[in-house]
Amino acid sequence: MGEKPEAIGVGLFGLGTVGSGVVRLLEEHREELAEEIGHPLVIRKAVVQNIAKERAVSVDPALLSTEAEAILDDPEIRVVIEVIGGIEPARTYILEALKRGKHVVTANKDLMALHGAELIDVARAHGCDLFYEASVGGGIPIIRTLIDGFASDRITKIYGIINGTTNYILTQMSRRGRSFEEALREAQALGYAEADPSSDVDGLDAARKMVILATLGFHMPIGLEDVTTQGIRGLEARDIAFAEEFGYAVKLLGTALRENGHVEIGVFPTLVPKDHPLANVHDVFNAVFVYGEAVGETMFYGRGAGSLPTATAVVSDVVAAVKNMLLGVSGKRLSRPYREKKLKEPSEIKNRFYFRLTVQDSPGVLAHITQDLSQSGVSIERIVQYPNQESGEADILIITHTTSLAQLDEALGRIRRMPALRRIHTVLRVLAM
Amino acid sequence: MGEKPEAIGVGLFGLGTVGSGVVRLLEEHREELAEEIGHPLVIRKAVVQNIAKERAVSVDPALLSTEAEAILDDPEIRVVIEVIGGIEPARTYILEALKRGKHVVTANKDLMALHGAELIDVARAHGCDLFYEASVGGGIPIIRTLIDGFASDRITKIYGIINGTTNYILTQMSRRGRSFEEALREAQALGYAEADPSSDVDGLDAARKMVILATLGFHMPIGLEDVTTQGIRGLEARDIAFAEEFGYAVKLLGTALRENGHVEIGVFPTLVPKDHPLANVHDVFNAVFVYGEAVGETMFYGRGAGSLPTATAVVSDVVAAVKNMLLGVSGKRLSRPYREKKLKEPSEIKNRFYFRLTVQDSPGVLAHITQDLSQSGVSIERIVQYPNQESGEADILIITHTTSLAQLDEALGRIRRMPALRRIHTVLRVLAM
Repeated sequence: MGEKPEAIGVGLFGLGTVGSGVVRLLEEHREELAEEIGHPLVIRKAVVQNIAKERAVSVDPALLSTEAEAILDDPEIRVVIEVIGGIEPARTYILEALKRGKHVVTANKDLMALHGAELIDVARAHGCDLFYEASVGGGIPIIRTLIDGFASDRITKIYGIINGTTNYILTQMSRRGRSFEEALREAQALGYAEADPSSDVDGLDAARKMVILATLGFHMPIGLEDVTTQGIRGLEARDIAFAEEFGYAVKLLGTALRENGHVEIGVFPTLVPKDHPLANVHDVFNAVFVYGEAVGETMFYGRGAGSLPTATAVVSDVVAAVKNMLLGVSGKRLSRPYREKKLKEPSEIKNRFYFRLTVQDSPGVLAHITQDLSQSGVSIERIVQYPNQESGEADILIITHTTSLAQLDEALGRIRRMPALRRIHTVLRVLAM
Repeated sequence: MGEKPEAIGVGLFGLGTVGSGVVRLLEEHREELAEEIGHPLVIRKAVVQNIAKERAVSVDPALLSTEAEAILDDPEIRVVIEVIGGIEPARTYILEALKRGKHVVTANKDLMALHGAELIDVARAHGCDLFYEASVGGGIPIIRTLIDGFASDRITKIYGIINGTTNYILTQMSRRGRSFEEALREAQALGYAEADPSSDVDGLDAARKMVILATLGFHMPIGLEDVTTQGIRGLEARDIAFAEEFGYAVKLLGTALRENGHVEIGVFPTLVPKDHPLANVHDVFNAVFVYGEAVGETMFYGRGAGSLPTATAVVSDVVAAVKNMLLGVSGKRLSRPYREKKLKEPSEIKNRFYFRLTVQDSPGVLAHITQDLSQSGVSIERIVQYPNQESGEADILIITHTTSLAQLDEALGRIRRMPALRRIHTVLRVLAM
């Protein structure tokens, strides 16, 4: 009675955008969090590269250190938050923390996509929790939902917009008719895209997130090499305008599908019908559809990044880790994928496709193309020709019926040999869900 | 070693649509569930009204009983599922089960909206869990998310489509130009609406769900009397067509807003801008937006009803209740609202509104109306007149700028006294979020 409950020490690796948000949330919600957990949470140390650097939050200089040991060697620190990003030294810090019995919360998608299995093994071996809600979808509680919410349901599809940078670029291209390069520069000016944008625009960031989601959803050890990845660099404003005319929005979608126990995982720019909820996910928002056999279609939508949304996910994970620690069940819910990985063969991967050809506008070209497609067994849902009288060329837009990628490739091979062909532009998927 | 883990007994009150789905899920996922929990789940008894009735699942007749005591008196039944619906006898059964130390999972929104506080008190007093994820949004894990996912975030808004029946009716009115009555009959024929549809179409079902969501989100003891409720019965296909022309979809929205510690909770047919994600939530789907101060805007989307989505939520709750029981922390997360209820005054409730007047088409009518509005301080965002030459009447459509309900009522009072007025049709809100 009257005794103050023991404070629970937290250590923070990294004090950038997300780290500052975590500090702010822990301070602003100090009382509610203490009430919920029964113990106050106290940041005992933040390890940074440069102590003198200006930060978005003011932190007692005594809490800062440049030495990882300041956290790792402090037995009072029970939960470690890693928000440095990148593979090293984050991986080493996390492994060391786990080996010393500290629970870890990370926002690091790159690390979880590449070394998640190793980290989870070490966490389990040391009876620690390792939570990573913030690694996918910022403030969207998608990972918690995949683990808890679908406990009694087999997941057959996960798909959605999981990269805010590319969604911002595509929104600008669509709404303002910007070129890819213009929209990218705007995104960079607003801080939505990095100086080297390739991880976002080439789809790698989305691919890493799909590794994390598909591993959890399908219980298979999915690796980055299992994700077919196509970015948005080749997209032209013209494709987006044509897609709109046909009733579609163009979105970069991550998809993970399971059929008869075989899975396919990919990241593709995709035509989304305008009356589909994903078509109205604009700017930097993320949205993930999860399809369970029993529950049917569900979607989760929210800001995919940003200091506070991501920090909210981190703090929720810290609360969960502390509760588990107090309950003595740490690490019990961490599961290694227990199903054998079975990927679909290319011939099993079927889709509707959109593509655009630029051709010399001469008689018989359209007939030639339809014949090439038909000979490869690709049937056409829609074909439209837009002549350009000045250049004497024409754009031909085609949306196919469901066909295998193998058949499409064969057809495109035939078309490529057509003398009137000037160019085959980016091939896009058409959402069929 | 080698000893079989003890089975955990489950009792089921009700074996209708949802109950049958629960039986099916527990059977189909028997092994995964046992793996996740560490113990098999076994249905020991299902209490029904009529044993001889045909059911969607085949159940061993020995498991059926018409006597509640068959569940209540069985000490091996640790978790009770209530899927009868309605207030009595569900309330009595749940209270008795809790008093005997059984954990309870219910899908009963009516009961939770009206007697949630009492049930939660009894559960806490007996160290039991009482979970009700299935009471709102079918398969959408919205309640879990409000409790866990926003642990470190203050929720300022919850709003969305939480009644599938009315959303189906509105979708049919919009897509096929059906009248309300035609669309309702179709919904009834498909089993989406009941013979007496008033609970759905008059907004009461949505209001009850808003009580549950707002109580959890704002930590205030919200009651049904705090929800201003307007249904969709007065809507005409014409209003929906006009709204579409203006760039809006009409949806029945539940809203719960907090500003400066004061809240307003309502259910209203609302004009939703077409590029808002809610505008693309069609048919019986539900979607709920939750706005946290830190996490920003998030949305959850899924089937709002149906045997398997609802049963999935029930089974997730059973798993959570059993885990808590095994951990010895049952009832710890059940919280009574700890903030004082503070409702907004009518003058604080502001919105944009849409309404339609039918008037005699004579000179000066439009000027009269705009003057009436202006005298009450209501400013007009948009006003359009559609003359009908045959009848000599005109429809006048008005969308206001943000105004208080008090001001709007005053203006409508003035307009009502205008001799040329034939009728004021349903007043709708315009989504401003």
